Parts: sequence; C-alpha cells; structure tokens
Amino acid sequence: MTKTQGPTNQLATPRGSGIATFMGLPHSRSLDGVDAAVAGMPSDTGGMPGSRFGPRAMRDASASLRPANAHHGVSPFRHLHAIDYGDLAVVPGSVRRTLDALEAELSPLYEAGVVPIGLGGDHSLTLAELRAASRVHGPVAMIQFDAHTDTYDTFYGTQRYNAGTMFRRAAEEGVVDTAHSIMVGLRGTVYTPEDYQDARDLGFEVRTMDDCVGLGIPQVIADIRARVGDRRVHLTFDVDCIDPAFVPGTGSLEIGGFTTREALGIVRGLGGLDYVSFDVMEVNPPLDTSRISATCGATLAFEFLCLLALARRGGADQ
Amino acid sequence: MTKTQGPTNQLATPRGSGIATFMGLPHSRSLDGVDAAVAGMPSDTGGMPGSRFGPRAMRDASASLRPANAHHGVSPFRHLHAIDYGDLAVVPGSVRRTLDALEAELSPLYEAGVVPIGLGGDHSLTLAELRAASRVHGPVAMIQFDAHTDTYDTFYGTQRYNAGTMFRRAAEEGVVDTAHSIMVGLRGTVYTPEDYQDARDLGFEVRTMDDCVGLGIPQVIADIRARVGDRRVHLTFDVDCIDPAFVPGTGSLEIGGFTTREALGIVRGLGGLDYVSFDVMEVNPPLDTSRISATCGATLAFEFLCLLALARRGGADQ
Amino acid sequence: MTKTQGPTNQLATPRGSGIATFMGLPHSRSLDGVDAAVAGMPSDTGGMPGSRFGPRAMRDASASLRPANAHHGVSPFRHLHAIDYGDLAVVPGSVRRTLDALEAELSPLYEAGVVPIGLGGDHSLTLAELRAASRVHGPVAMIQFDAHTDTYDTFYGTQRYNAGTMFRRAAEEGVVDTAHSIMVGLRGTVYTPEDYQDARDLGFEVRTMDDCVGLGIPQVIADIRARVGDRRVHLTFDVDCIDPAFVPGTGSLEIGGFTTREALGIVRGLGGLDYVSFDVMEVNPPLDTSRISATCGATLAFEFLCLLALARRGGADQ
Amino acid sequence: MTKTQGPTNQLATPRGSGIATFMGLPHSRSLDGVDAAVAGMPSDTGGMPGSRFGPRAMRDASASLRPANAHHGVSPFRHLHAIDYGDLAVVPGSVRRTLDALEAELSPLYEAGVVPIGLGGDHSLTLAELRAASRVHGPVAMIQFDAHTDTYDTFYGTQRYNAGTMFRRAAEEGVVDTAHSIMVGLRGTVYTPEDYQDARDLGFEVRTMDDCVGLGIPQVIADIRARVGDRRVHLTFDVDCIDPAFVPGTGSLEIGGFTTREALGIVRGLGGLDYVSFDVMEVNPPLDTSRISATCGATLAFEFLCLLALARRGGADQ
Amino acid sequence: MTKTQGPTNQLATPRGSGIATFMGLPHSRSLDGVDAAVAGMPSDTGGMPGSRFGPRAMRDASASLRPANAHHGVSPFRHLHAIDYGDLAVVPGSVRRTLDALEAELSPLYEAGVVPIGLGGDHSLTLAELRAASRVHGPVAMIQFDAHTDTYDTFYGTQRYNAGTMFRRAAEEGVVDTAHSIMVGLRGTVYTPEDYQDARDLGFEVRTMDDCVGLGIPQVIADIRARVGDRRVHLTFDVDCIDPAFVPGTGSLEIGGFTTREALGIVRGLGGLDYVSFDVMEVNPPLDTSRISATCGATLAFEFLCLLALARRGGADQ
Amino acid sequence: MTKTQGPTNQLATPRGSGIATFMGLPHSRSLDGVDAAVAGMPSDTGGMPGSRFGPRAMRDASASLRPANAHHGVSPFRHLHAIDYGDLAVVPGSVRRTLDALEAELSPLYEAGVVPIGLGGDHSLTLAELRAASRVHGPVAMIQFDAHTDTYDTFYGTQRYNAGTMFRRAAEEGVVDTAHSIMVGLRGTVYTPEDYQDARDLGFEVRTMDDCVGLGIPQVIADIRARVGDRRVHLTFDVDCIDPAFVPGTGSLEIGGFTTREALGIVRGLGGLDYVSFDVMEVNPPLDTSRISATCGATLAFEFLCLLALARRGGADQ
Repeated sequence: MTKTQGPTNQLATPRGSGIATFMGLPHSRSLDGVDAAVAGMPSDTGGMPGSRFGPRAMRDASASLRPANAHHGVSPFRHLHAIDYGDLAVVPGSVRRTLDALEAELSPLYEAGVVPIGLGGDHSLTLAELRAASRVHGPVAMIQFDAHTDTYDTFYGTQRYNAGTMFRRAAEEGVVDTAHSIMVGLRGTVYTPEDYQDARDLGFEVRTMDDCVGLGIPQVIADIRARVGDRRVHLTFDVDCIDPAFVPGTGSLEIGGFTTREALGIVRGLGGLDYVSFDVMEVNPPLDTSRISATCGATLAFEFLCLLALARRGGADQ
Repeated sequence: MTKTQGPTNQLATPRGSGIATFMGLPHSRSLDGVDAAVAGMPSDTGGMPGSRFGPRAMRDASASLRPANAHHGVSPFRHLHAIDYGDLAVVPGSVRRTLDALEAELSPLYEAGVVPIGLGGDHSLTLAELRAASRVHGPVAMIQFDAHTDTYDTFYGTQRYNAGTMFRRAAEEGVVDTAHSIMVGLRGTVYTPEDYQDARDLGFEVRTMDDCVGLGIPQVIADIRARVGDRRVHLTFDVDCIDPAFVPGTGSLEIGGFTTREALGIVRGLGGLDYVSFDVMEVNPPLDTSRISATCGATLAFEFLCLLALARRGGADQ
Repeated sequence: MTKTQGPTNQLATPRGSGIATFMGLPHSRSLDGVDAAVAGMPSDTGGMPGSRFGPRAMRDASASLRPANAHHGVSPFRHLHAIDYGDLAVVPGSVRRTLDALEAELSPLYEAGVVPIGLGGDHSLTLAELRAASRVHGPVAMIQFDAHTDTYDTFYGTQRYNAGTMFRRAAEEGVVDTAHSIMVGLRGTVYTPEDYQDARDLGFEVRTMDDCVGLGIPQVIADIRARVGDRRVHLTFDVDCIDPAFVPGTGSLEIGGFTTREALGIVRGLGGLDYVSFDVMEVNPPLDTSRISATCGATLAFEFLCLLALARRGGADQ
Repeated sequence: MTKTQGPTNQLATPRGSGIATFMGLPHSRSLDGVDAAVAGMPSDTGGMPGSRFGPRAMRDASASLRPANAHHGVSPFRHLHAIDYGDLAVVPGSVRRTLDALEAELSPLYEAGVVPIGLGGDHSLTLAELRAASRVHGPVAMIQFDAHTDTYDTFYGTQRYNAGTMFRRAAEEGVVDTAHSIMVGLRGTVYTPEDYQDARDLGFEVRTMDDCVGLGIPQVIADIRARVGDRRVHLTFDVDCIDPAFVPGTGSLEIGGFTTREALGIVRGLGGLDYVSFDVMEVNPPLDTSRISATCGATLAFEFLCLLALARRGGADQ
Repeated sequence: MTKTQGPTNQLATPRGSGIATFMGLPHSRSLDGVDAAVAGMPSDTGGMPGSRFGPRAMRDASASLRPANAHHGVSPFRHLHAIDYGDLAVVPGSVRRTLDALEAELSPLYEAGVVPIGLGGDHSLTLAELRAASRVHGPVAMIQFDAHTDTYDTFYGTQRYNAGTMFRRAAEEGVVDTAHSIMVGLRGTVYTPEDYQDARDLGFEVRTMDDCVGLGIPQVIADIRARVGDRRVHLTFDVDCIDPAFVPGTGSLEIGGFTTREALGIVRGLGGLDYVSFDVMEVNPPLDTSRISATCGATLAFEFLCLLALARRGGADQ
Repeated sequence: MTKTQGPTNQLATPRGSGIATFMGLPHSRSLDGVDAAVAGMPSDTGGMPGSRFGPRAMRDASASLRPANAHHGVSPFRHLHAIDYGDLAVVPGSVRRTLDALEAELSPLYEAGVVPIGLGGDHSLTLAELRAASRVHGPVAMIQFDAHTDTYDTFYGTQRYNAGTMFRRAAEEGVVDTAHSIMVGLRGTVYTPEDYQDARDLGFEVRTMDDCVGLGIPQVIADIRARVGDRRVHLTFDVDCIDPAFVPGTGSLEIGGFTTREALGIVRGLGGLDYVSFDVMEVNPPLDTSRISATCGATLAFEFLCLLALARRGGADQ
C-alpha cells in the first residue's frame, strides 16, 4: 500500500519553507485512515524548565529530514499515513491537570488504532501516554531509554507527580507491565547506591550504561527484544540517555552517555515489536545553543516512524 | 463587522502551543473573504545569508503576541479576517527566478484585494511585491524604513538584482512611484558621500537618521504622510533601520539607529494611509542569539495588521 | 552609624572570587541586627520557564558591583547591616505550595523589621511577599514596574495563581492597598483594549509606557510619590518593564520599553518612602545569552539597598 | 630541503596576535617556489547560508595550531613552502559565475604545480576545483568525505548547480574519474532508498557510515587507497561527515557520524597518494556557537599539509 | 590630495572576503608616506580576560564598513594614507613587559608623524600610548570616554599597573597633561563616593553620565573642546562608556550608559582637534555573543579616521 | 564512619536553590575534622583568558549532582567530611605572586591532612599545589590528564611561569617525582616532533592519545597504577584531554580526544592510590556556551571525592 500524503519534498521546496509541521506532514485533527500522529506535549511543569518548547523546536529541526531511511531501505510515508496532530492540551502550573488533559486527548488516538509519536515536554508526561494506552490495551510493556530511573516516590515533601517519579506512579497504577519493561542507559550520580535496585523492585529490568558498554549493542538489543516479547509496547526516549556532547539541550546533563550512533544502532534493532506509541522527551530548546539536540530528537521521531513502517509493510521497499 | 477567526487565545492555550503559524492564525490558501495574509518569503540569495529563516523565526516569536493593541485601542481580528498564507515559492541560488516565483504567487493576492504582510527574507524580495502590486494598482508609493538606500546599480560586476540594488531596479521598471516615496532612517557608512543624493536623483525623498533626530518623530510622521498622500502605498521595513542593540539579528549592522520605541512611534503615526501591502525584512535568526530581533519583527507585523484594522473600522473599538 | 560587615572588597579580592553571595555579603540566617536581607525565590512554576535560575545569576553578576553609589553619594553598607539570606523554600510544580512556603519563610523577616530584597523567580511570587508583609503591616502600597498588569483572572480554565493573575488575587485578598498603588511602564500587546481599565477597576493607578514618555521622568516620579504618600510600600520590579535590548533575558519580551537609564532615573527618584520590601523579578538566565539582564537585575537590587541606606542615615555620606 | 618561511611561532608571539592568515603563514599572491597555497572560497550561494564565512573562521581558529605533527613526526613547513593565498573571487547570488570565477583563479595554481588547500564555502565549489584540476591533469580521482552523495540532478525545478548536485555535474562533465573515486561516511535521511545506488551508477564507490563501522578504520583506509591507486587525486572533506557533536557548525546536521578521532585516523592513513588539491567545506560560523567546528576544519587543513609534506620528504623528520 | 591605497571595495569584492585586515586596508610595516596606522594591542593581562581577542574581532567586523562617511560628507581614504600595521608585541602574563614592548613599537610611529589607531586589548595599554606619545610631544591632553576613572592606586595589594590604575600612573609619570584632559561618561558603582573627586584631584576634568544627561550632547562637546583647546591630544575610548545593550561584549558592564547614537554624536563633534593618536579599548569577543560590540568598536575606529581626514583636507569632500 | 554534614538533598531542596557552594556542601574555613576541601583557584593570568571563572561555573553546575555514585556503590559523604573552602587568594596580572599566594593558602591544608580538590583556573596553578604538597610530603607523584605536556621552557622570551611551562618548573624545583609520574592523553599539534621526548627527558612517563587508543582503557589504567605505585600522588586533570565535543569550554581545543566515558572509565579505575590532592583545570566559562564543560568538570571533582571515599572506608557501602 502506498500512502499519498507525505512530507515536504525538499527537492521541490527549500528546506525550512512553509509552516513548521513535523517534516512538513499535513496538520490535521482527523484520525480517519491515519496510522501515526505526531503530537506535541508542550509542558515542563513536572521537570526542568524549557522542555515545553521542545515540540516547536523538533518540528523546526525536522525540516532537514528527507523522507527515506537508507539503513532500513524504507520510505515510511509510502506505507504509513502520518499526520502532525498539533499539540495536545496542557495546563502550565499543574502536573495533575496536565496529565488528565493529555490522557483525555490521547485516548481517542489509541482507540482509533493510531500510533502517537509524542514530542515532549518533560518526562512526567509519559504517564499520560501510559494511562491512555492502558485504557485500550491494558498494562503495556515499556522500553525506556533514560539516564535515570524516574522511580522516586516524592520530591520536596509533597510532589508525587513529576519527572522523577512518574514510573513509580505508573507501576502503582498498573498502567505499565513492568515484567516486560526495561530501562536502558542508566548512569550518572544517584541519591543512594540503591536507586537502581528500587527500580528492579518495582519489576523493571535495568541495563545501566556500564551494562551496555560491557554487553555491546547487539546484546542490548537482544535483551530488550527478549524482555518485551510480543507485548504491546510503548517506547519512551528521554534524550538525556545520550551524552551531553550530542544532546547538550536537555535539563539533566549526565556525562558518559550513549553516542547518537549507538542510540541509533539500538533503536534500529528494535523493529518488529508491537508498538502502540512512542515519545521523545526532554529536548530543551533554551539550553540547545547549537540546536543539535532538537535535530537529534526529530531524527529519533523519524526513526520511530520507520520502525512502524517496517512492521506495516513487512520488510524493505521493493 | 467582527471577524470570527482569530489568533490563538493565550488565556486558554499556553503560549507556544500548537503549530507555529503567525499568532496562531489559521493557515489557509483560500483568499475568500480574507482581508490580510501573512506570507513568508524564505530566501536570502540576494542578501546576507540567514534571513531565509526569518519567516519561521517571526512566526515562532509571534506566539507571545496577544490579540489587542492598547495604544490604538483596537482588537484587529475583530475587524480583519487575517490568515497565515504560509510561505511563497522561492528558488535558492537564483534571485531572478525567486523574484519571478514570488511575483506569480503574490499577484492573486493583490488581485483579490488581500493585503499581503510579507515576512522576509532578504530585502531584494520587496521588488517582487512592488512588481505584483503595480500590475494591479500601477506604480505604488513606498515608505521605506531602512539604514540603506538600496539603490546601487550593480555589485561584483554582474549582479543587478540583490539587496543593495532593488530600489534602483524598481524605479527603472516603473513599479514604484518615487515621487510619493520616502526613505526613513538612512545612516551608517556609505560607498561615496553622494550615495543619498543618488537615491534622490531617482526621485525618492530621503530622511536620514540625522534628519530624524533633528526633526523629531512627529515631524517625521508628518513628512511621510505628506509625501504619500492618498496614493496606494507599500510599506517596507528593513529591520536594520533599528539599532543593533534592539535588532542584533540582521545582516548589516549599523550603530546609531532607531530605538524600537521610536520606530513604533513612527509606525503608529501612519494610520489612515491606503496600504496595499507591508513587509518586514532582514530578520536573520542565526545571528539573533537572544531572539529579540524576531520578536521585534513579529511585533511590527502585528502593528501593520493594526494599521489595516484601524482603516477598516474607522477608529478605535467601541 | 557605620556597619562593619560588608561586601567583598574588589580592590583586595578579584571580582568573581569566592562563594557567590550577593555582592559577597555574608550568608547568614540570623536576623539579629540585620536591616536588609537579600533572599532568592527560585521558582518559575507560575510563569515562563527559566526564571528559577534568576537568583543564582543575579548573585553571580553582583560580583561586578562596587560598594558605593556615586549618584546618591552613599556607601550603603556603612549604614545598613545587610546579609544574603540564601534562597527561600519553594515547591517546583505547585504555585500554591510555593506561595505558602515563601510566606512562611518571609514572615519572620517582616516581623523582625528586616527588609527583604527578593530575587525572583517568576512574578507570581510577589504575592507571597504581599501576604507576609500584610500580616505585619496590613495592606501595603505597591509600586509595580512592569510591562503587564498581571491582573487577569484565570488562565487555561483553572489556573488562578500565576504570573498573570497575582495582583488580582492580591487585591481580592486585601493584601495590597490598591488606592496607594501604581503600575508603571505598561505596554505591549494585550488581550483586549480594556485590560488596563481592568487594573484601574481594581483600584490601581496606571502609568503606561505611552504615559511615561508623554509625562517625562520627573513627573512620573512625582506621580508615584504622590500615590504612595507615607504608606508602607513594597516595590516590585519586573525586569520586562525595561526594553528587551537592555534585558533580553526575560520570558515576556515587549519592545518599546524603558532604557536602563530611564529606569534608574525613576528608581533613584524614589528615596524617602517607607519601604517594607523590594523585589527584582523575571530575570531568566537561560535566555540571557549576553548576561546583561542579570547584571541589570543585580544593579537594581543594589539601588534598592541604597534607597534604604539613604532613609536610614538621612542623607548623603559626610 | 628546509623551507624558511613558516607560520607564526607561538612560543614567541601570543596565539591570536597578528593579521589572521592561516596559521600565520605569509599572505602572498606570488606562486614562485610555492608548494601549497591555502585559498578561501567564501561563497554559500549554492548551499546552506553561512558557510561563506568559513574561510575567515578557519583562519582565525588556525591561530591555535602549532607547526608540527606528533603523529607523523613531521614539521611540514620544513618541507613545504606554504602560503595563504587569500580568498578567491566569488559572485554572491550566482553559483555559475562563482564557479567560473573560481576556476579562472585556481587554474594558474594547478598549472604551476601548487597544491591548493581550499577553505569553503559551500560544497558546490568543489566543482570549480575539479574543473581547474582536470584542465591540467585530466579527470582526477576524488576522495569524498561526506554524509551525502551530492549527486542529485536538480533542485527546485531549475537549479542544476548547487551543493546537492555538483558531483553528478562533475561526472557528466568528465572532470572526475569516478572509477577511481570513493565516497566515505554517507548516512542520514535520504530522498529515496535508492540514492546511494544512484551514486554508484555514476561510477563512484560508496562506503556508508554503516559500512565504515562494520569494516573498521584500517579497512576503510585500505579500500580508499586501493580505489585511488596512483591516480592524481583531489580530497574533498565536507565536515558534515563528522558527527554534529564534534561539528555543530555546519548546515546539514546528520546524527550518527564519525568522531574526529575516527576522521583523523582515516585521513592520517592516506599518506603517499598523489594529491593535486584538498578542500575543507561547509564550516558554517554563524551556527558554530562553540567555535569547535572551525577548529576542526582548520586542523584538517593542517593535516592535509602534513600529508603533502610527508610525500615531499619521503618519511618522518630526521 | 587623494590617496590611492584604500580599503576593500565591497561593490567589487563581497563583504568578508579576503584576509581580515582593518577594512581591507593594506597590511604593511612600512611607515613611508603613511598618515594613520591601525595597530592591534592583543593583551588583557591587565584587565578582564578576553579583550586580547578584540583586535581580531574588530578587524573581522570592519568588513561591513563602507569607505565613506555620509554625516561628514567625507571619504577618508581619499585624504589619508592608512594602513593596517598588524598587532604590536605583547607579553601575556606581564603588564609591565607588555607596556614596555608596546611603547617600543609605538614610538617610531609617533616619531614618523603617523597617527596610531590602537585596537585593544585592555585599557591599561593606553598607558603605553601615552608614554610613547609624550616622548615625542611631551605630556599630551587626553579625552577619555569611559564608565570608570581608572585612577585607583593599587589592586590586590601589589598591582600598580592594570586597567583600573593606569591613569593615576600616567598622571604620576607626567605623560598626560591632566589640565587639558577630560573624562566623559563616568557612571556605575564605585568604591567610595569620593572616587570621582580623586580623579579631579589628579587634575582631570570629569563629566559623569549624570552630567552628560543634564548638559546635553552639544554642551558636552563644547566642554571637551574647551578643555583640550589646541593641545596635542590622545582620544581613548573604553567601550564600556556605552550602555551594555549596545556593547554587551565588554568586561565591566555598567547599566545606564550612552547609546551609540549619543556616542557617535559626541565623537563627530570633535573634529579639528590636534590628534596624535586614538584607541578603542575593551571589546571582549568571548562575551560578545551577538558580535554587535565588535561592530561598534570597528565603527568608532573608522570615525576616528574620519576625524583625521577632515583635519587633513580642511572640510568636506568637494 | 558516617559523616553528618553533606551536600544539598535535591529530593528536598530543588536543584539550584541556595548559595552556590560545591554540591551545596557547607562553606567553611575551619579544617577541624575535615577530610576533603573543594577550593577554587580563580586565576587565568598564566593561561588562556576566561578560566578564572571556572570555580564559580563548576560550583553552579554541581547543583545537578546527586550525592551517590552508582558505579562504585558509594555515598562519599557518608565516609568523608567534605567542605567548600571557598576560593584561594590570587593576584590577577602576576603568575608568580599568584603561585606564592596559593602555596601559602594550600600549605595548611596539606599540613592538616586535608585533601584539596582544586578547581581552576589555568593549569599553571597546579605548580602551587605541587609546591605546597612537597613541603609536607616531599616530591609527589603526579597523574596528569592533558592534551599537552606543559613542559616548555619559556614563552615570549621572558615568561617562565605559565600554563605551558609549569611542569618543567616543577621538575626543576624537585616538587614532582617524575619517576613516578605519567602524562595521559597527549595529542594535537606540537611545536616540534620532539616535544613529547622533551617530557620524557624530564623523567615523565608519557601515554599519548594514540597510545591510549592502541592499548585500551584497562591497560592505560594498569600503566598508571604501575607508574604511581604506593607513592603519594597528585592527580591533575586538564579538561582539554577530553575531546572538544564533550568540553568545548576550554582554551586550547584539540580534536580527537577522550570521550567523557573513556575519561570516567580511567578515573574510576584509579581507586586505592594514596592521593594527597586533585584538581580540575581549564574549564573556561565564557567559551562554554552550552555549559556542558562545567558539568563535566564538576562531575570529575565529584568522582575524585568518591575515589577518596573508597579509600577511607575500604570498599563499597554496605
């Protein structure tokens, strides 16, 4: 099947011309016949300030993306009807209301079988995706690329919903199937030496950065695939799992992370899974002085679309 | 008359949410019932590199603009049906083809009585606006805010169409009515002491920065109004007429320019003229490290919409 | 009276050496004998993201301030015992809890007769200062330097406490004496042409930027002084009242504002009032690429200390 | 043979002192006795805007380069008479005229046996080098470090000469010997999955980034050397073959590229070939906020001089 | 008399092409027939770090300057033989040795009647100019544009030669004729309220920023002219006398300074004096994120050349 | 043993709140019971300008460090009493006086058995640490991470003490035990091909970047440990040993360096040595546009504290 609506053709229209939708995809709120919908989540109330501008920056950076993937040999928009759904409603100043609003707007997508590609925004917002996904699919598996577990209990005495706690909440709420979920790339300073064990105690599998270096990329891929199996899965990508040299524009810098080549290598090895949604979180434009972080985030979103396209057509383009 | 389609309501939707059209106006290519159309002209082949990204940057910056003007006491979108027309076709690497493409796309707007608000792009592109306007209206008057006359003959031996020559071309082509046109804000170093006289010899009136300081803002306004009279007029605003402190993000920095308060003061004094179009040129995002230049450019575009709205409703809102 | 504890002596210790307290003042939580206490309020949950880093940036920038004021002929630290009180408790992600925490920490200062110099942080936090001040002094007069009224009612349907609403809340709560309060520098786009009238309806006096240009600095000073009279007064300074050329590092850029020279001119004319506290709000370091905004904010805080010193000693140094 | 004219001695003259020629080499237009001439090509009309400032930025960054290469054990200026030839003529706004002007200025260098080290400028300019080189030497082999093939046919309907098409033009014109040419480092999004095959169809050998990772640096070196053999060869280095983390200052960012260590590793393995010229292209200073890209470009130009020096003296310094 | 050697003709050669000498003037060490010599002084050991890169940055920024001055109606290079003398020798890490080296290199210029236009570098270096000038001319008058007096005695216990003390040293050494010297633009925080009186006690006239605002530009000009009279005079311009909005790239930011329009206004009023030399000091490129400060500095140097040219030909060009 | 005074608890106090001491450690000048003292050395007179601001920037960046190390399984502040000692006295403009002042202030720490963690500042300052250490311990071994040997003899004819010469001075003065010292990471351009041999001739062991790539991280660790043995050792870390992609904010950029992951890998392998002090040098904030360099420097300082903690408690936390 070949879809007819696609991104901007840079051979005809100069890069950066036109209204800044993701890759120039049509901006639409209609879900009819849609396979995938890029959706911004412009809130940072739950995390470090600045990521609310991430969706705009990734859309802008996506102007330099061409429509095919040479690694996979696939032109995703020949196989997918993808749209830019615009931004979802958020409530600056309230994480709880923002989560509720996002869940309400995301649910129709999951119900319609449309795969959301969320552009964050701070990482707490992934909880809304998990809640909405689980309403349709039950608890979903999760592949979490991240420098941090984000499974703390409370911050500042009273804050139970923020970018450091949402995966503990997700486990408590039963919206994530921790038995088929895995965290990849954990590193950096921690609150106590037991932090990673706390995540394991919630049921998550853990692969630290040290683990990944020791195991090598192919084994990391194999471990992720084995963990997820045939479950419906949400892939969440906190860009801080990549090293600050490659992604300086994010709120929590941890030296010693993945290169983008390694990150791409893992992501490209994750074809064939049963994805219900993806997200790219924590791109922080005011801190992204060289705009390479937004480019990285946009490219990852495109790679996720390619993973979907591969599944839909069953292999590389003929 | 009150128009129903307006910009994003920031009281309901957070600033910066949603697809980045100008002020969140609807993106449309339909001219039916439209009064004003914001249109990007993303080319810099004729000038200093970087201004091709101006339209995107001004759209992004326009997210912080609220829908009413306290100075004039007007809510322009109650009186105008305004749209974001998107970007017009350009041909990177060729000024002549770009001018032709722009003229072809602009002509239907002038024919339909829609007022284009052009977002540049380098200043050479104004020639396309003048050509398209003159096809409908005959030679038009021009109010030119600029640090430079842009009436040189050729650059580099062969280049007759660029951001330093287009107003000589416009005069030669008869698309501008120089007898009712005026340049405001000239300053900075020149090629010869006779440069300003060259512009006068083409028929333009000239108010240098020195003149403006000597005359005062009210007299400058009066001089512009007297010069234009009741002619159909294009207002072109090269942001380099404003001082680099206020607009660092432009390709030709000339110290000693207008403050934004002075520039606003003059622009706000130019209501009631018979505008056929406006433009804001030479915002150069890669050089706009503090993004204040894009904000200035977007605000000017909004002020131009207000000038139009004032004319349409005949006074301040009741 | 001459105080013995003062700021870093840059003639002896190079600028920028040492732990970054405000001007190198001693960091202390003791209020014993203290006249003025610089106190950071590092929260931006109620406003544009980034101003939470304002206190650190202003402290860092204060390293270039020398200890005397040539305009007033005063060495404030000969007359005032001033300390850096550190930062007050805030709760990221919750404006209400942050306001409560700040009020609880500020109240002892007002009770002890110590004048807080608040370093923001987003402007919503001023509500906590007004609440704490009014507990001791009853409703206080307010001098508000600002581009915006910040008297809207709600944002996003549900948000009643943020940087656009707090002065409506303050009026409703009776913590500000609007009959002796005045807003200075209002400008920029508004939601409706009636926005300024809404502030007047709450009892505030209003001087727009247009007013200030028309009246001139001396008359603006006279108007402020007449409005405040002998009431106890809080001076709040949102740095966006100054033009973006001078303060690019703030969240809401409005072109056409005060120069720093004008702002200093007004502030220096406000000696002899009965100040209970001051604040400098909305310095936003991630947006302050040239760090001039933090320098401006720190200088204003120093000028406020000088206003206090003048009052304490009754004139210039002998 | 030991040359007497060399670069600035940083042990005597502080880094950054003096007129900014490349490494402080003498600026001269005389080719008498000259082995290598660094020559700027300050045009970006054919590509992304900003690279026209590349030559100045690389000259400025070269101030930190010392005159010897520890890896090779060579002091190139003991063996080469190198000069800074200044910038070659370009025609902003016209790719064709720029190519003609560059070819006219480069031809005397090739005729005199001087090896040009071109500093770009956008990558389309390499076509002028190939044309000039082929006039003297016939079709030359080419080693192309690049993320992109640059073998498209036309852009925007009419543009046949730009930074995405010039190597198709070079093949068509017969100025490059594709049978002994090779592209190294291809990656990133493409227009169709067949893009790389299109380059192969023109006769070029291709090593994608994926290939390079799979083969390892030593094999990549061997493959390049085998492909070029004893042909006269032009080495063109588009800095976008290096990852954006290492070269953020370029117009087409593609994540997942070479590290500088890998790039240096390959370049250093390419001694002993029969170079007729080199270039370093697409350094884009307005985007190079941390100036590391210009430093990388300057260092590569120095490494090219070292490759030449090794050939001239037949081994490491004694 | 019309000089034949001039700056780059931007109508023929694109802005920014070629080796970066000041305005493209010929780089020469010959003083034969030379009227004025631009000379870099790349040292910052005596002041805030970074200004050592000022000469390179001002040369680079000077590429945008055209060869004539419309205000004065003069083409300076028709009347002056001006060269770029390159940078003078400095000794990083030692102010004293740097002053000695500079004096040694400057003396031949003064002896030959060549007017140096010094590009700094930190302000302490002006002492070397005064020393060299006085060797030829005896104590010279000085016009000092500055936010600070720079007449302190010692810093850090032992440092008697730095950017805060050099004018006390100059007075002590008798190389400046304080009775005909004047400081313009003093403002900002001071060490004690008596700092300005200390400068007066050394014999300097003082015009603070407050004075200048009160007197108005024409009177300030008159005061300077009256003070200097017919004495041989050195004009030193510390760019921090201009407001940080206009010159963010300098080491000592003081809000409330001159606009560039005011500064140009004063400088342009200072024709006809008997200048022996000029300098532009304290442009600090690492802090000049929007490069407007280097542009300002380069423009001032050009204005100084124009003042010289006016004197040489006795009026505007015919 | 568990220490009671520790860093800021980010679970309770938001990141970036409070006076910016290193990790929020108590600022104290008392050495009583102290194990380790972070001490700033804010001077850059001996090196490239800007590193004097390194201590403040690293303290600010340290706000994002959490108190435990997952790699080592250690919470260092349970085992160490660490303080922020503030900044040590320096004398801008004089390297010699600065070295004397630093030595005088450091000696009491070494005498008291407190381990200084120096935050530079330019690399010449390490000489003061070696002098002070040797007064207590005799000549100490040194582990030097660096791109450069810093063993040149003189610069600019007269300068014997700067950031390129101090380790020759240290060897000559007998304060470093070169027979147990090793340089790691040397690379980049050199003055002559013999530069590294010059360091070996002084007795230092050398591992170039080429060596490290060839040997692999484990062997590099083994070589360092073997070289140092059981000697008392100072570890000095010039951040330029890390690649500019990871540390753009330093004065001497050399492409092709360590990744932070490699650097961390080596540092973490150096537990159990008899450290007398550490330093992190050459972080240059004005050049650190993305602030990742200061984050890297602060993280390294934390890792050094962890190495100390491991030694003190004899293994991972229980």
